[in-house]
Amino acid sequence: MQQKRAIGIDLGGTNIRIALLSSSGEVMGIHKQPTHAEREVGQILEAMASGIMHLINEYHIEREDIVGVGLGAPGFLSLDAGVIHFSPNLPTVKETPVVALLEKLTGLPVYLENDANAAAIGEHWIGAGQGSRNLLCITLGTGVGSGFILNDTIWHGSNDLAGELGHTTLFLDGLPCNCGRKGCLEAYVSATGIVTRTRLALSGGRSSSLSHLLAQGENQLTSVMIYEHAKKGDRLARELLEETGKYLAVSLGNVLNLLDLETIILGGQVSQAGEFLFRPTIEEVERRAIRAAYHPLKIVPAQLGDHAGIIGAAKTAFDHSRGN
Amino acid sequence: MQQKRAIGIDLGGTNIRIALLSSSGEVMGIHKQPTHAEREVGQILEAMASGIMHLINEYHIEREDIVGVGLGAPGFLSLDAGVIHFSPNLPTVKETPVVALLEKLTGLPVYLENDANAAAIGEHWIGAGQGSRNLLCITLGTGVGSGFILNDTIWHGSNDLAGELGHTTLFLDGLPCNCGRKGCLEAYVSATGIVTRTRLALSGGRSSSLSHLLAQGENQLTSVMIYEHAKKGDRLARELLEETGKYLAVSLGNVLNLLDLETIILGGQVSQAGEFLFRPTIEEVERRAIRAAYHPLKIVPAQLGDHAGIIGAAKTAFDHSRGN
Repeated sequence: MQQKRAIGIDLGGTNIRIALLSSSGEVMGIHKQPTHAEREVGQILEAMASGIMHLINEYHIEREDIVGVGLGAPGFLSLDAGVIHFSPNLPTVKETPVVALLEKLTGLPVYLENDANAAAIGEHWIGAGQGSRNLLCITLGTGVGSGFILNDTIWHGSNDLAGELGHTTLFLDGLPCNCGRKGCLEAYVSATGIVTRTRLALSGGRSSSLSHLLAQGENQLTSVMIYEHAKKGDRLARELLEETGKYLAVSLGNVLNLLDLETIILGGQVSQAGEFLFRPTIEEVERRAIRAAYHPLKIVPAQLGDHAGIIGAAKTAFDHSRGN
Repeated sequence: MQQKRAIGIDLGGTNIRIALLSSSGEVMGIHKQPTHAEREVGQILEAMASGIMHLINEYHIEREDIVGVGLGAPGFLSLDAGVIHFSPNLPTVKETPVVALLEKLTGLPVYLENDANAAAIGEHWIGAGQGSRNLLCITLGTGVGSGFILNDTIWHGSNDLAGELGHTTLFLDGLPCNCGRKGCLEAYVSATGIVTRTRLALSGGRSSSLSHLLAQGENQLTSVMIYEHAKKGDRLARELLEETGKYLAVSLGNVLNLLDLETIILGGQVSQAGEFLFRPTIEEVERRAIRAAYHPLKIVPAQLGDHAGIIGAAKTAFDHSRGN
C-alpha cells in the first residue's frame, strides 16, 4: 500500500500556493502561481485544479493515494457548506461554493478552512505549537490573522467567525481600520499599521533616518525597513517597534486572561523584527496576564514561515479523511 | 431506587450558600449562613460540613443518594488537586486542600469549581444559556466574574485561570484596579467601578441628584441607587449607565471577535439596571462585533439570580458522578 498524501492550498490575494504533503507533514512538492485576483472566479478555480494535477503528475502519485485537498482561504466562510461568502482581497469570489466547484474540477474531496486557522493548525501540528494543547497563532502581515487551538482542535466558533484578534479594540476611538471600525489592533500592529504610525510620527516632526526613506517614495517605507533602521540604531524606529510590542501585548494579555492558553505564536513579516518586537511584547504581557504570575508563558516565533498555511490546510484534509 | 441528589455550595466572602438539588436542577432546600471570613479555615470548613448534614437530615435524604458535593469558590484554584491557593475575600484560606478536608468531614465526594464558572454552568444548564453551545456568563457585582461555556463544556484553560474578563484591559493607562493593574474592565463596570466613576464625575463639578446621596454618607452611593436615580431621570446617572454599557460592550465585542459565541449572559447587581445598561451595551456590541453583521447576537439577563452558583456547583457534582 502506498503512503497517503494530501494537497494543501493557500489561496491568497497575491499568490496561490499548492503543496503535496506526506502524512507526517513533509512538503514533498510545491507549486506557486500568481492569483491574478481580478480574474473570474472560475479561472481562479481552474488554476488551482491544474496546479493540483501538475503536482500529482510531477510526483507520480496515484489519485487514490490522495486523501483530499485542504483549501485555506481568506474572508468570511461557511466551512461545512464549503462557501466563501466574501473575501476583501478576492473581489470575484462572492458567495462561491468553492468546495463543490473544486471537487467537480478535481474529482478529489475538498475541505475548506480559514487561512489564519490553517496556519494555526500547521504550527500546532509540526511547528512552534507542537505539544501545546491550547494556543493562539498570529500572523502579523498586511493584516493581522489569528487562529485558536483549544484542546488540540481548531476553534471555529458558532459561525466560523472566530479568531479575529486583529479586530479586537485596542483604543476606543483610535486609528481607522480597514474593516471600517476604529481602534482595532490591526490598525496599530499590522505592517500597514506600523507604517501609518511611522508616517504620523514623522509628520509630527520627529527626526529619524526613516524620513529619508519616505522622501524616496511612497513604497520605500515598509515594516521591514523600519526593522532595518531599528537595527542600525534609529531611535524612532526602535520606539515604534517597542510600542508595537506593547500594543500587541495588551491584546495578548486580554486573550490570556480570558482563555489561559499555554502558547502564543507570532509569525508574518512584522515578527521578523525579532527581539525588537518580542522583548517588549513579553515584558508587557507579563505585566498584564494574571497567569504570568503563576505559570510560565511561551511567546514564540512561528517556525513554518510561508508554509504554515499549506501545511495546515493539508492537515485538515488528513483529519477529515480519518473522520476527525 | 431513590432519585439522585447533589449538594451545591457557593462559598463567598460574605455568605456561604448550601443547596440540595435534584438531578433536574430543582433547588429542594437551601441553607445560608454568614461566612465570617476572618475565622480559621478549619471553622469555615466545619460550618460547610454541618450545613450539608443539616440539609441531608432536614430533607430525609439517604447519604448514598447524594452523588457528591460541588464547591464553588472564589480566587485562584487548582481544580483537579482540589486546592484553593489564594482568595482575596477569604484571607484564612491559603494553599488549602479544601476538597480533601471537606471529603474527610462529610464522607462525600467533593468537586471544586471556580465560583464564576459555577454560575456559567448553572445558567447554561437550566438558566438563560439553555440551548446555547458557546456562551459567556458575566456577573457584574463588587467585581466582575465570568465563565465560558465552549462546546457545551466549561472552559478552564491550561491552568484553571480562564474567564478573567474583569481583568482584560479597557484603557491602557486607566483607573487603578483591585488586582494592582490599571485600566481593567472591572475598574469601570463593576458596582465598585461605577461608584468610583460617579464620584469622579461629581468631584469634577457635575450637578446631579446623586450628589445629595454622597453628602448623606459614604455608603449611600451604590450602583443600585445610581440606577434608581437614572429611573427618576437624573441625567448624570443615565450617562454613567450608558457609558458602563459602552465600556462593557468593548470587551464583549472583543470576546465575540475572538471566539464567535452565540450568547452572552449578564447577571449580578449591576445588571439590574435593565434597559439602562442592556440597550447601550447591545448597540455598541453591534458596532464592534464582526459577527453582528452576519448572525444575530443574544445578550440576555441571567435567570437564576443568586442561585446560579449553587446550581452550577451541584451540576459539577452530577457531571463528575457520570464520569463527564
